[in-house]
Amino acid sequence: MNLDLLRGLRVIESSAFIAAPLAGLTLAQAGADVIRIDMVGGGIDYARMPVAPGGRSLYWTGLNKAKRSVAVDIRRPEGRELVQALVTAPGPQAGILLTNIGVPWLAHDLLARQRPDLVSCTIEGNADGSTAVDYTVNCATGLPAITGGGDAQRPVNHVLPAWDVACAHQAAFAIAAAALRRQATGEGAALRIALSDMAFATLSHMGMMAEVEVMGEPRPSLGNDLYGAFGRDFGTACGRRVYVAGISLSQWRSLVEACGIADAIAALERRLGVDLKQEARRYEARADIAALLAPWFAARTLAEVRAAFAGTGVCWGPYQTLPQAMAEDPRAGPANPMFERLDTPGVGPHLSAGSPLREPARPRGAMRPAPALGADTDAVLMEVLGLDAAAVGRLHDAGVVAGPEADPLMRAG
Amino acid sequence: MNLDLLRGLRVIESSAFIAAPLAGLTLAQAGADVIRIDMVGGGIDYARMPVAPGGRSLYWTGLNKAKRSVAVDIRRPEGRELVQALVTAPGPQAGILLTNIGVPWLAHDLLARQRPDLVSCTIEGNADGSTAVDYTVNCATGLPAITGGGDAQRPVNHVLPAWDVACAHQAAFAIAAAALRRQATGEGAALRIALSDMAFATLSHMGMMAEVEVMGEPRPSLGNDLYGAFGRDFGTACGRRVYVAGISLSQWRSLVEACGIADAIAALERRLGVDLKQEARRYEARADIAALLAPWFAARTLAEVRAAFAGTGVCWGPYQTLPQAMAEDPRAGPANPMFERLDTPGVGPHLSAGSPLREPARPRGAMRPAPALGADTDAVLMEVLGLDAAAVGRLHDAGVVAGPEADPLMRAG
Repeated sequence: MNLDLLRGLRVIESSAFIAAPLAGLTLAQAGADVIRIDMVGGGIDYARMPVAPGGRSLYWTGLNKAKRSVAVDIRRPEGRELVQALVTAPGPQAGILLTNIGVPWLAHDLLARQRPDLVSCTIEGNADGSTAVDYTVNCATGLPAITGGGDAQRPVNHVLPAWDVACAHQAAFAIAAAALRRQATGEGAALRIALSDMAFATLSHMGMMAEVEVMGEPRPSLGNDLYGAFGRDFGTACGRRVYVAGISLSQWRSLVEACGIADAIAALERRLGVDLKQEARRYEARADIAALLAPWFAARTLAEVRAAFAGTGVCWGPYQTLPQAMAEDPRAGPANPMFERLDTPGVGPHLSAGSPLREPARPRGAMRPAPALGADTDAVLMEVLGLDAAAVGRLHDAGVVAGPEADPLMRAG
Repeated sequence: MNLDLLRGLRVIESSAFIAAPLAGLTLAQAGADVIRIDMVGGGIDYARMPVAPGGRSLYWTGLNKAKRSVAVDIRRPEGRELVQALVTAPGPQAGILLTNIGVPWLAHDLLARQRPDLVSCTIEGNADGSTAVDYTVNCATGLPAITGGGDAQRPVNHVLPAWDVACAHQAAFAIAAAALRRQATGEGAALRIALSDMAFATLSHMGMMAEVEVMGEPRPSLGNDLYGAFGRDFGTACGRRVYVAGISLSQWRSLVEACGIADAIAALERRLGVDLKQEARRYEARADIAALLAPWFAARTLAEVRAAFAGTGVCWGPYQTLPQAMAEDPRAGPANPMFERLDTPGVGPHLSAGSPLREPARPRGAMRPAPALGADTDAVLMEVLGLDAAAVGRLHDAGVVAGPEADPLMRAG
């Protein structure tokens, strides 16, 4: 746990895929004790690609760092009762459930009979309970039709599951906010977030839905051009590409000065009869502006561009592949204190990100790698439910719970 | 405020653009009293496109719903002192600053002299303090090189500023978590989040950086194909496109059954010698699977696809432009209780999203539209700082503060 903001808060996570596990990770990295419950042998997402030579999923181990793992046979009533008991166990900072698995035996109202101040947060596909994943939500937003210069017939999907990522952080926020209310009033909360609501709310908040309704004109398909100001990509003499943005007036002035095009811009302003200090005018004149800038970039290597922009207020960055970023960009490597080299069971040592949230005044706590499946089964049952070793042993013998020895991918490794 | 999770919490927001304002909106929709401070006449983002015929920005009014607005001449020492006083005003639920504007007079350490338990959250471009915006961070992640079938020479930018959106929700989470710790321990917090850290942390959490380091193979450029399982887009007989995902085994079985390709899939499994019940095998065989499915979609209209999939477990969705979504999709229109028709000054009535977070057991509170600039200047100065009407009047006379009559876009409208 990198931060101690949520120290003492206990969250039971019953989840799969990205949004709910990333919410749990966000909580865990901020100091919460997040206990992930999985089916003995692993849940539906346990073996998802990419899988390391050591046997375990880089996806699962990436999203489940800093948590504890309990493996339970949730097909059996005794297993379900154990999970219910973990969720509703006493303690002012316990009684919190994070889930995206809408099973009746984890329904809020059922669990609240045991613990009326329960806080639960459920991530779902659509608000009516129907299935949706990031990909089937994103296609509904219209964004693929205006990405990459595409159109409705040639939609371009995002690669980042951005709605999952947004939902994850909204869910972490929801749990912290509900814990704050509970601390003040004693009240629980049954919270829900649908992926599709996350998507359409975001489009509305950014004004894109109002643009359709109020102005009758949807956002055009702009390729890599930035909407509403000046920004686009350029090729360099060494075959790399860079992105340059002139959004604020100071960014724009810095760009014009650094590239030595002040006279050409003044001539363009006279020719068009516009004032390019206004960002909307820069947007309208973007093709003309780009034509003035392109030769400057084409005549310089990336290193020369970097040197020319150093110490200026130009807002820019190179395009990098991820391997290039990891090799060349200090933000994506061990020079960034956000990263730690964790030795993850079944994967081995590799650079792993902690929380992007920082509290510079305090020492940054160390992360824990993702546990083997069931690594904490015994400790959690004893600590949270007060079971003794004999009782835990009987649960193992009956096959209701399992420890790390039953992790199928660790055995494979 | 749609929810009352944060009722009583007072947040002073000094911000611009997307990430910080969206964080403030997230807090406000969950019940916090978010007071946005702007320069008299509007900050750097006040007039950003798209601008409504009524004169005001759909972008700004979308991101600043549910907040109060105070207009201050922050170039003057008296104006800065007022903002500092608002941030450090007493009260157990006050003393919270949300900002992405790194000015020395709002530095945490300076303000903490007045209020040691101050909670501040600062969103920045890079952790070293250098400038970055979503676009210049995204190009560094490698995602544009694998979007839309692109490569490093033909990068495809995302249209959604996904890192801004993720940062916004992480910041809202950070503030709620710090308020929780402060309620328990009395301690303040100086928190920071860099856009670039948000991006690289997310890539690491999803296993994409480990994929490069541990396996030596970065994620390939897959066009609209889903990585790691089966999912892609298909054209229909009526010229529309749909996205179909077979990630979980039950989704896959539902798809095979609904499209009547069970025999063909069995034959394919025999020919390839693989078991397509395993999602990684479906990913490897995705081209063969798509070839079996494409004729089924090509022979059906979207309405026929919808009818065929109704009541099945198939995970799918149509591609829609945003105008299509708003016309046809109940999730993106007034049938969705997340939306309200707000009459925003300078824009007029239009459908506006509230919080995607729901607490179904409680009535959903009504939203407030974005205020005119300075609409709450007098009320906030009197209520928070205890100034009387005469003192507020003197600040107006001296030009240190302004009310909505000085909103330049409202006058234009």
